[in-house]
Amino acid sequence: MMKEQIISMAKQARKAAHGMLALSTQSKNRVLHNMALALEEKRDFIQKENEKDLVAGREKGLAAAMLDRLTLSDKVMQSMMNGLREVAALPDPVGEISDMVKRPSGIMVGRMRIPLGVIGMIYESRPNVTVDAAALCLKAGNAIVLRGGSEAIHSNLALAKVLQQALAEENIDPAAIQVIPVTDREAVNIMLTLEEEIDLIIPRGGEGLIRFVAENSRIPVLKHYKGVCHAFVDASADPAMATAIVMNSKTQRPGVCNALETLIVHVDIAEKFLPLVGKDLAAAGVEVRGCSETKAILPEVTAAVEDDWGKEFLELILAVKVVENLDAAMDHIVKYGSQHTETIITESYTNSQRFLREVDSSSVMVNASTRFSDGGEYGLGAEIGISTTKLHAYGPMGLKELTTKKFIVYGDGQIRS
Amino acid sequence: MMKEQIISMAKQARKAAHGMLALSTQSKNRVLHNMALALEEKRDFIQKENEKDLVAGREKGLAAAMLDRLTLSDKVMQSMMNGLREVAALPDPVGEISDMVKRPSGIMVGRMRIPLGVIGMIYESRPNVTVDAAALCLKAGNAIVLRGGSEAIHSNLALAKVLQQALAEENIDPAAIQVIPVTDREAVNIMLTLEEEIDLIIPRGGEGLIRFVAENSRIPVLKHYKGVCHAFVDASADPAMATAIVMNSKTQRPGVCNALETLIVHVDIAEKFLPLVGKDLAAAGVEVRGCSETKAILPEVTAAVEDDWGKEFLELILAVKVVENLDAAMDHIVKYGSQHTETIITESYTNSQRFLREVDSSSVMVNASTRFSDGGEYGLGAEIGISTTKLHAYGPMGLKELTTKKFIVYGDGQIRS
Repeated sequence: MMKEQIISMAKQARKAAHGMLALSTQSKNRVLHNMALALEEKRDFIQKENEKDLVAGREKGLAAAMLDRLTLSDKVMQSMMNGLREVAALPDPVGEISDMVKRPSGIMVGRMRIPLGVIGMIYESRPNVTVDAAALCLKAGNAIVLRGGSEAIHSNLALAKVLQQALAEENIDPAAIQVIPVTDREAVNIMLTLEEEIDLIIPRGGEGLIRFVAENSRIPVLKHYKGVCHAFVDASADPAMATAIVMNSKTQRPGVCNALETLIVHVDIAEKFLPLVGKDLAAAGVEVRGCSETKAILPEVTAAVEDDWGKEFLELILAVKVVENLDAAMDHIVKYGSQHTETIITESYTNSQRFLREVDSSSVMVNASTRFSDGGEYGLGAEIGISTTKLHAYGPMGLKELTTKKFIVYGDGQIRS
Repeated sequence: MMKEQIISMAKQARKAAHGMLALSTQSKNRVLHNMALALEEKRDFIQKENEKDLVAGREKGLAAAMLDRLTLSDKVMQSMMNGLREVAALPDPVGEISDMVKRPSGIMVGRMRIPLGVIGMIYESRPNVTVDAAALCLKAGNAIVLRGGSEAIHSNLALAKVLQQALAEENIDPAAIQVIPVTDREAVNIMLTLEEEIDLIIPRGGEGLIRFVAENSRIPVLKHYKGVCHAFVDASADPAMATAIVMNSKTQRPGVCNALETLIVHVDIAEKFLPLVGKDLAAAGVEVRGCSETKAILPEVTAAVEDDWGKEFLELILAVKVVENLDAAMDHIVKYGSQHTETIITESYTNSQRFLREVDSSSVMVNASTRFSDGGEYGLGAEIGISTTKLHAYGPMGLKELTTKKFIVYGDGQIRS
């Protein structure tokens, strides 16, 4: 019964996606603006449904931070409305034609950007993801099937209902945005087998949820497990610049995936640089876990253990290692990195180019804070997630990553000889 | 034991791939030319090993066509050598930088094309795939783990040995090209779980093998099951052009995936067009299986049954359906198509644009034969396969589809505020 219901929803999403191939940019933008208006108009309804989730959450004894993430306050409502209008303002990626060339046979061949089809989104507590993800998928011409957490089910269903009404008013099939009303793991398992109906799965949440999705999906999954970002301070680095970048990368927002977790320092600059950065780190309350060479220079720091390398601390702890040269630094990143973001601080042209070319993380930087690794900072407009696997998308994902390209051919009667 | 061996090979491939990130274009091209020379020099050894497979094949009673595909004749050897030199002549996709923009923060952000890493290739009888696939993967900077069919095992191992010697002479890790010596399904199953070591699986062979791979893989798979190509002859089509395109699409090489399988005809042109094309089809020995409207105009043809729609005949059989309008034609393609290649023959500007936009197959054409759907004809240089799933690549896949893009950032000390 539940299985049939989920299959039926996915089939309806596939049908809706087919109808969306012919949607005009104007129509998509109009409905996004109308959705923002509808959230305003239906605010009472949405917040009343949200209150049901909050009551249930309190009864279940959810932590205060969890309840906070669950709350659709006026501020969160406003941020969803702003998000809808920002997505409306983004350029429409669909229909763009590129690489058009004339071939010796006389045919013209190019590539046209098209929607992926149906996106399956699997996420945990924040109900605002429902609106943010639906908006991006709609703008890219995709239908979306959302499966949120059980704590947010009333909020998610209420938001979907409001969005669906806006779709219907624009004569778009409301099945383009659907929330699965069943929230147990079995519902996820069923979704993950529907490879004929769903083109892509995007999981968002803790590492446990993401691993579960990746291990059970028959549908392609775009995901990242964690962000273990490295900074390498090269021998030629400007110590003041290096200090500023390390401090910003580590402390500006330590709980996020693009925060710095391991600092690697060239041996030739270690004696000069480590005391400088060590003072600022201590002042900012950062616990340093250093290798033996680091401890020789900064005796007061904690000794690093093997488990500290490649660890995503997500708090004010920094692993620090001294290395002989650039190659040793890159070997450390290969061994312990997560393909998220790495930065080199250097004045050496050759080393900057080698680092950019030979480190194959999804974001590789020279003389900049790892905190810039973000769809908004990169100019993607809005971010649907980050991929640290190389297929289809690598790094922050925006609207274009929710599309693909087909080949188009203009002929005037050509046949193959 | 077998499991450990395959895991060990994949781990060595991962290590080799890492070393290949710094390979110069000159080095890759030199080794491709040296591989061609080595095939020439080691021709006797290779053909002697190939003879072992042929003897075993004859003993097993393989069909003549199968033995033919297995044979490394002088002609096939020459074609492999030419292939290696052609791949050397292709532009190197790796290192290309695009979309470089300056952001308000002052950082410069762009995308650099990089190798995917390790490709797993699973294929059936033709041993020349070993060389063709290895050459393309090498040029794109990837390591490759090949798992061919049991019938070709001596040939595949001999070819890999020769290619590996050429790699070693160029100081490239020979683990960049490896043939798994175990040919049962269990070896495939083990490969398909190594998601940490292998980035992409490309299966080539019958639908059974491809479905087995897709259903069991934890690694992303690029594949197409079949090609059920459609041509729609619109009311405004030039009948002579439509006839030429239909005949070429159906009969020029009926056994391949871009051959025409279903002809859809607008009712307003059916009475004029069907007798014309019917005569040529009959003369070429093509069996027509028509809908009732088709039979009303061409009474001599076979009546189509439901099973004929969406069928990949791969021989001189053509299903023919008369429809009311463009929408009905596109509905038929959605219902029965395989997302491979569809063409419209029309003089209507509006209908040509609607067909190009609303049909979301991997190749969509106007006034051209479906037989042009091919990496070589599209100018991709050489083809590693075709994808009819939309993630990462859609349509014929060339060198670029064996790569991905990472973000690169040039800063001069920027930190995030």
